[in-house]
Amino acid sequence: MASHSPFAATPAPPYYAVIFASRRTEGDEGYARMAERMVELAARQPGFLGIESARGADGFGLTVSYWADAASIAAWKAQVEHLAAQEMGRRRWYAHYEVRVARVERAYGRAGAQGPRSATRS
Amino acid sequence: MASHSPFAATPAPPYYAVIFASRRTEGDEGYARMAERMVELAARQPGFLGIESARGADGFGLTVSYWADAASIAAWKAQVEHLAAQEMGRRRWYAHYEVRVARVERAYGRAGAQGPRSATRS
Repeated sequence: MASHSPFAATPAPPYYAVIFASRRTEGDEGYARMAERMVELAARQPGFLGIESARGADGFGLTVSYWADAASIAAWKAQVEHLAAQEMGRRRWYAHYEVRVARVERAYGRAGAQGPRSATRS
Repeated sequence: MASHSPFAATPAPPYYAVIFASRRTEGDEGYARMAERMVELAARQPGFLGIESARGADGFGLTVSYWADAASIAAWKAQVEHLAAQEMGRRRWYAHYEVRVARVERAYGRAGAQGPRSATRS
């Protein structure tokens, strides 16, 4: 993913967001490889719109994935390889996590400090 | 904020989330001080429920603030000192940002790898 923009190129709202807040346990324990694989898998799921992720040096991270609708999110949650990753997350990778499913109603943004305003998408 | 949990202690849904994705310009330029001040100010706004934030070494960050309703978000967006910070953000601090306003419909989580499951809040 290093070659891609960290911003998700989402369409005009409405669409859905899954906000995943987590604190990692110490050590990698296969986490980085799993995380990369899950992004690959998610991107192939019907209704996937994009993903954004950041984790600070303190181990606290936020990942927001964007989906066309609630049904797409349910299908991704039940995907077999993802289920196994969720189980490993609960058992090993995350000291704490919180998941919030939200319906995006408005969106706007701007690229380039002092640059032109980007198209508003709401 | 270092002494607080990085997780927001939000009530049962529904409530609102503002998902702010950004890439910083280089150099601090007063950013860290402003960011701390904005968290202080936001926490005093009516309807504020909490905030979560992470930024990686690449300069890409996600901040999600949680609000009781859309009116609380509109009031915060129009707060005078926050308006000045938004202007500085556009002019100096952010190479790129995207804002998404979303209604949280479901939430669940778990604290403690291999620990007991926390109360589901949806």
